[in-house]
Amino acid sequence: MIHQDVVQIQTSGRGTYAIDTVIRDVLGKSRLRRGVVNLFVQHTSCSLIITENADPDVRRDLEALAADWAPDGDSRYRHDLEGPDDMAAHARSVITHTSLSIPFSDGGLLLGTWQGLFLWEHRQAGHLRSLVVTVMGEAR
Amino acid sequence: MIHQDVVQIQTSGRGTYAIDTVIRDVLGKSRLRRGVVNLFVQHTSCSLIITENADPDVRRDLEALAADWAPDGDSRYRHDLEGPDDMAAHARSVITHTSLSIPFSDGGLLLGTWQGLFLWEHRQAGHLRSLVVTVMGEAR
Amino acid sequence: MIHQDVVQIQTSGRGTYAIDTVIRDVLGKSRLRRGVVNLFVQHTSCSLIITENADPDVRRDLEALAADWAPDGDSRYRHDLEGPDDMAAHARSVITHTSLSIPFSDGGLLLGTWQGLFLWEHRQAGHLRSLVVTVMGEAR
Repeated sequence: MIHQDVVQIQTSGRGTYAIDTVIRDVLGKSRLRRGVVNLFVQHTSCSLIITENADPDVRRDLEALAADWAPDGDSRYRHDLEGPDDMAAHARSVITHTSLSIPFSDGGLLLGTWQGLFLWEHRQAGHLRSLVVTVMGEAR
Repeated sequence: MIHQDVVQIQTSGRGTYAIDTVIRDVLGKSRLRRGVVNLFVQHTSCSLIITENADPDVRRDLEALAADWAPDGDSRYRHDLEGPDDMAAHARSVITHTSLSIPFSDGGLLLGTWQGLFLWEHRQAGHLRSLVVTVMGEAR
Repeated sequence: MIHQDVVQIQTSGRGTYAIDTVIRDVLGKSRLRRGVVNLFVQHTSCSLIITENADPDVRRDLEALAADWAPDGDSRYRHDLEGPDDMAAHARSVITHTSLSIPFSDGGLLLGTWQGLFLWEHRQAGHLRSLVVTVMGEAR
């Protein structure tokens, strides 16, 4: 059986936004017991990651590394219509994840103790982001 | 219900190749209404990405960044049997995607306006690439 | 139909560990014929990759590149509670894969000839890693 919702996440600029709660809400509404939840952001300048949820310095350090992986305003970029963070955002999206698939059982996400789900906004400005949540599994 | 096809993509060397149309064709044939499509390339020297589909400079700039992420002919590589692009191709595959899962509804892919699906050939020479498309969902 | 197992992988420190056999075992037990297998590691300091399985130098070279992507003990890291490999491990996890989805048919994984499945331990010390394997598909 399948349950599908689109949820909106308002970001306030570059950084990570916890989405565990909103995903758990959709999973609860699905009333499914066991299977896989697929998350999909409908954008090419933000992405999804699973990372350590306890120490916010982890996400701060990821941001520092992302500046190496895909610097803002790199002199080689031709695509800069929306500013120095435009191409950097597309590249950071490509090397992280547009889509994540997470197993669940007994109606709960099978995340490890330290795993948090985050939407990573790569643009400097805030954006309204659409996230498609598709729950596929067995009924309770 | 499940529909599964293998499609072949002929590349003509390093670069990105739009695969939206071929995926939509398989989805149409499946006659499924709602669920998730899984794409899987059966190779370790090309990959799949979702990125901006309007300005080709985005993919050109990604190529420039990939030369930082995994340069051709890096002096540290031991694996160079098939040339300077051999190991670079494996590495670029690992930090992008062998597999993508995309939701669909009413028989249509739930891609955002600017999202395109691309096979990224990382080898300098053209290759025939096999892509497994598995549609899982509810019947119409 | 869905079959779900949690398997434990004991690592002995940084490096790659072949997991094809353990995944094939779970797939066999599921008795499902066609669909998608989802792999999910419940950790933020190891990850999953699909890469060339013939020449071990490929994985050695990936390790060398990972030292560029996310160096141990980078001076910018604030998160270093568990040592110089702590933050590097989280970052390497984020740019590779916590989750992989692989199609199967006739009860066999649809991997290409040279594709191997690996758990990549990013910590210097060995760890016991939990891997959730969810098989979704049609019965035989």
